[in-house]
Amino acid sequence: MAHVSHDENFAKLIGAANVLTSETDMAPYLTEWRDLYQGATPMVLLPGSTDEVSAVLKYAYEQDIKIVPQGGNTGLVGGQIPLETGEEIVVSLKRMNKVRSVDADGFTITVDSGVVLETLQNEADAVDRLFPLSLGAQGSCQIGGNISTNAGGTAVLAYGNTRDLVLGLEVVLPNGDIWNGLRSLRKDNTGYDLKQLFIGGEGTLGIITGASLKLFPKPKKLEAAFIGLESPQDALKLFSMAKAQAGPILTGFEIMPRVGIEFCTTHLNGARDPLESPHPWYVLMELSSGTEAFPVRDLLESILGEAFEAEVVTDAAFTQSLQQVQDFWHIRHGMSEVQKEEGGSIKHDVSVPVASIPDFLNRAIAAVQEFVPGCRPVPFGHFGDGNIHFNVSQPVGADKADYLAKWDAMNEIVHGIVHEFNGSISAEHGIGRLKRELLTEVKSELELDLMKRIKTAFDPKGLLNPGRVL
Amino acid sequence: MAHVSHDENFAKLIGAANVLTSETDMAPYLTEWRDLYQGATPMVLLPGSTDEVSAVLKYAYEQDIKIVPQGGNTGLVGGQIPLETGEEIVVSLKRMNKVRSVDADGFTITVDSGVVLETLQNEADAVDRLFPLSLGAQGSCQIGGNISTNAGGTAVLAYGNTRDLVLGLEVVLPNGDIWNGLRSLRKDNTGYDLKQLFIGGEGTLGIITGASLKLFPKPKKLEAAFIGLESPQDALKLFSMAKAQAGPILTGFEIMPRVGIEFCTTHLNGARDPLESPHPWYVLMELSSGTEAFPVRDLLESILGEAFEAEVVTDAAFTQSLQQVQDFWHIRHGMSEVQKEEGGSIKHDVSVPVASIPDFLNRAIAAVQEFVPGCRPVPFGHFGDGNIHFNVSQPVGADKADYLAKWDAMNEIVHGIVHEFNGSISAEHGIGRLKRELLTEVKSELELDLMKRIKTAFDPKGLLNPGRVL
Repeated sequence: MAHVSHDENFAKLIGAANVLTSETDMAPYLTEWRDLYQGATPMVLLPGSTDEVSAVLKYAYEQDIKIVPQGGNTGLVGGQIPLETGEEIVVSLKRMNKVRSVDADGFTITVDSGVVLETLQNEADAVDRLFPLSLGAQGSCQIGGNISTNAGGTAVLAYGNTRDLVLGLEVVLPNGDIWNGLRSLRKDNTGYDLKQLFIGGEGTLGIITGASLKLFPKPKKLEAAFIGLESPQDALKLFSMAKAQAGPILTGFEIMPRVGIEFCTTHLNGARDPLESPHPWYVLMELSSGTEAFPVRDLLESILGEAFEAEVVTDAAFTQSLQQVQDFWHIRHGMSEVQKEEGGSIKHDVSVPVASIPDFLNRAIAAVQEFVPGCRPVPFGHFGDGNIHFNVSQPVGADKADYLAKWDAMNEIVHGIVHEFNGSISAEHGIGRLKRELLTEVKSELELDLMKRIKTAFDPKGLLNPGRVL
Repeated sequence: MAHVSHDENFAKLIGAANVLTSETDMAPYLTEWRDLYQGATPMVLLPGSTDEVSAVLKYAYEQDIKIVPQGGNTGLVGGQIPLETGEEIVVSLKRMNKVRSVDADGFTITVDSGVVLETLQNEADAVDRLFPLSLGAQGSCQIGGNISTNAGGTAVLAYGNTRDLVLGLEVVLPNGDIWNGLRSLRKDNTGYDLKQLFIGGEGTLGIITGASLKLFPKPKKLEAAFIGLESPQDALKLFSMAKAQAGPILTGFEIMPRVGIEFCTTHLNGARDPLESPHPWYVLMELSSGTEAFPVRDLLESILGEAFEAEVVTDAAFTQSLQQVQDFWHIRHGMSEVQKEEGGSIKHDVSVPVASIPDFLNRAIAAVQEFVPGCRPVPFGHFGDGNIHFNVSQPVGADKADYLAKWDAMNEIVHGIVHEFNGSISAEHGIGRLKRELLTEVKSELELDLMKRIKTAFDPKGLLNPGRVL
């Protein structure tokens, strides 16, 4: 009997048109936008249904074929790119893009995992609801990838991480079994909460094919202020005042240093210095409410009134229009790209307990400046979540390559301080391939062992996204 | 060498005074308040620190001794009571009752697992913060038990289940290893989220010894209305309107049937019919805000104004004082005990998707009335969570024992309908020993198998809380 190749067998399962083997067809699946990884694979599979994903994994399991699940290919740690060795087959969920049901009264939505985040946001908006997950890649990232990486974004402070938005999951296990955990219950205490392992599991335990998600009332009123402060310590005091007064109405609390504002006014189109005189630190504070009746602006002014009296803030600009709110966020969102214009930048995506941010910043800034005299720390981000993007720009006039050669050494210094504050070296982006080695440095042997036991219990052959996370 | 008995060895580890062996000392640990279970054990151990819990489990693991962890002994499914065979040793966490740290600015608190819930609430209150978990047993239940059973309570609608309140855990594993997952981070994507398995794990995977928990702003304003409606369908419409307008300010939405109100006015001290004329159904709606500035009363009136116009509600009484809010809740909280006065009551703690509650109630009420003509369904509870306490009182004048003999058969009927709505047969109370058999009926073989794989991965000898859940 003639040898039948895998691609022909996969073609029988999902159709020849959905088995990509030509270089040009496969190219988009083998690189990611930062060009950190260039993968290789014999084929890219595009199953169109849960049953087809199941059939693909069942065959792969029988044949000992390694599989890399891929969503919108916007991941930042290389988890979705096949190894350079070419031994892994890519399974893309892009054809699983149906919204299964929307329940406005019950505030839930159920979708295929390949639905693009922005599509999901629009579906919710169409029934006067909000799906709060929001991040830069939302035009192309898929909800299945968001769930697999427990994506963060800008709405975590008020609505939580992706984990907090998931009510139920449908998952295909490494051997092809389909687990139907697609419940949309607010309360269910019937045994271990299995879905929690697939959320943030980075595709190493199963392939998510469907999800039931929470919806929220759509915000009707929005106000923001750009605030100047002397120190992160004052930012913590302001956060405490704002959270105590506004509670769930506090939807944004982002910190930025003076140097970051200067980078923006120099390099970012349409960015103006938001305050007349310079301040060492800035906070962008946003309040929003689903209730027309809520006096959002009054509350914002009362919080800042209290803060001025306590001498916690030195100046503040209030928005007079929705356009101004967007202008303020334009500066915050531009904070990352403008760093390119200032030479090399060594980056860290870390989190510490919110109350520890001031001490962490003081120590980390001093440490990197001692390590590289003249370097320019630009720590910014989601203060209210304890999540700081601790990026450090090179000294003015220094050699970019020489500076970037210090990446790992600086990471080690910063992550060491993060660890002392019982923090996280990957607050938002996950582990993937990029931070796999680091994981062994920050996790106890016991914790790594527990993770391995779970991996083995779900994927005994180690065929699903091998070499990611663990 | 003389044989050294276990109690002497445990005494060496935690002190003789903390090894209880006399019948009178052990009695409180062997029964629970509903007298459903009467357990037996050779001894009750009271370790006073994480290291002592670790030493106890290490010895038990080496000696193949089965262990039952126990918190405040307020569980409703028998998980905390040792088997009648007397082969299991009770480990009580009651001596681990220290608050480790309170962080008002960071809105977190870290405690020993034996801290009583009410103590935890008071610690938060002392720093002008709220720990929202609230339930009937809060004066004696312990936070470790609340976490192990993922307790629900009356604040789930706005603040989520216990699972949503946990930031980090410290856990002693079955072999005595101590896992330090005691982080108080809002964001952390570094591998599988292990704590999720111990939350709701009912003490079968490890013993929780410490927890970091979320705190919230303390509510400053509180308003409620007692509302009359024609049907659960109208209650769903009202819920949708209220949630859309009030969002996170909607902190209570409880449904009650007319017969329940009549039970209360007949049997409950201080209970008055809240509305002049009778209505088939009632909703107790509560709004609360941590912000003085929020016009809570205006919002409540605007929601009900919209509902009246849409002819969704037929009458409503607003509270004029905090006392009246408590009077309204007095009726809701009395709904369970008054059923005793009306003879036998067959109970179900179920949940369905919120939007399915009306259809579920219509079908379940018709089904039980067909099964037992003249029986009186008293379905009430947390409408906003999809969680209904579907209790059914016996026909007037029927024989109580004959009626209660139908308990399992009626359970089967109701749970069958719950299952068709993809609901849960234990929304709040867990599985323990009481619902272990039922679990096999409502979960797929695959899901049960996945749970067993996790159990085996964490507790290969099956020594920790055996025969509970799985």
